[in-house]
Amino acid sequence: MKKIEVIRNILEANETIANRNQDLLDKHKIFALNIMSAPGAGKTSLILQTMTSLKSRLNIAVIEGDVASTVDAEKVQNEATAVIQINTRNMSESCSLMAAMIEQALKDLPLNDIDLLIIENVGNLICPSEFTLGEHKRVVISSLPEGDDKPTKYPLIFIDADAVIINKMDLLPHVDFDIANFRRSIQGLNPEAEVFELSCKTGEGIERWCSWILEQLETNAKKQ
Amino acid sequence: MKKIEVIRNILEANETIANRNQDLLDKHKIFALNIMSAPGAGKTSLILQTMTSLKSRLNIAVIEGDVASTVDAEKVQNEATAVIQINTRNMSESCSLMAAMIEQALKDLPLNDIDLLIIENVGNLICPSEFTLGEHKRVVISSLPEGDDKPTKYPLIFIDADAVIINKMDLLPHVDFDIANFRRSIQGLNPEAEVFELSCKTGEGIERWCSWILEQLETNAKKQ
Repeated sequence: MKKIEVIRNILEANETIANRNQDLLDKHKIFALNIMSAPGAGKTSLILQTMTSLKSRLNIAVIEGDVASTVDAEKVQNEATAVIQINTRNMSESCSLMAAMIEQALKDLPLNDIDLLIIENVGNLICPSEFTLGEHKRVVISSLPEGDDKPTKYPLIFIDADAVIINKMDLLPHVDFDIANFRRSIQGLNPEAEVFELSCKTGEGIERWCSWILEQLETNAKKQ
Repeated sequence: MKKIEVIRNILEANETIANRNQDLLDKHKIFALNIMSAPGAGKTSLILQTMTSLKSRLNIAVIEGDVASTVDAEKVQNEATAVIQINTRNMSESCSLMAAMIEQALKDLPLNDIDLLIIENVGNLICPSEFTLGEHKRVVISSLPEGDDKPTKYPLIFIDADAVIINKMDLLPHVDFDIANFRRSIQGLNPEAEVFELSCKTGEGIERWCSWILEQLETNAKKQ
């Protein structure tokens, strides 16, 4: 039983720190998104498109989570107010970002100058579902080449999502992906989730997604 | 320090059971592959193509690892000598198959009737790199739509691979993927790894991959 107890302690400790992170973000009127997906589904591309679309209206900071490398941080650095790269490689819990890593990163961000914080989680459909980070909304990206069965095979991450993005719509003619079937699965697991169909390559659907962010940001500001 | 000790104990216990699994497989002259990839890279499609190509020469069993669902087991059941589905959903270590799960599955397989055991791991590029299962060879699939930077971002799983498969070659005209760059990254991390370019959709490259399996199976049999 020892092992199970340790794991429960990790999750409880994570929750406590996540709540503290959210309090700090609220104090500074920062709205935070946690972007999760399998490797290569398009998290960084979505963040780049989002920044291009919203940077004239919002100051945006990005926290990049990766097992190794600074590839993603380099891609977004020109568009962001500030970027922090977290490498989880040498940490025993390397399969997800955790609230304590975000707490550390927040110390290095100019909190008074930020409206929107986008956290790009490690590419993984399993572990990140267990660890909240202090974000206001949780976003999961699925991309067409992965197949439409992902909600059935990795249900937990979809159950807790506020928004589900179907990315790489430009590949629809070239892959087998039944959008109605995917939407039915999401509806069954999590009928409250907003679903967006978009392509970060062509820009299709980005406007609706960015409108949703602005609405959420406004709603969140009114709560404070 | 307690947490770190517990994790080390899990890995050591896993290694002991994995060695026991391999002894049992060797006793029954079964050659075992551990197939790993991100979600949707094509593990099940590769297994289906491999079975179609090799079933006239080998008796093949499959162990399917998934967080939830029996989707993959249903797909392969018609072609396989035997199929076992493992669902990791309710286990505290749900982000990878572990040797103890394979030990349990081996009890339900007709070991005397099997030449090749293919284990499809949970879709994840992080956790499965830490847990050996008793397999003889480790195979990682990357698919073109994921992008060519995956070895840089998830190095550990590629460092320990015996074979790396580049799948979905049929999508090359539609995505940005630099094959030379990907191969250079693999060469840097793991120069011994065999690299295969193939498409499970068109069948391109399957023959060379299956020849490699037959060679490995023969080499392994000679060792016993």
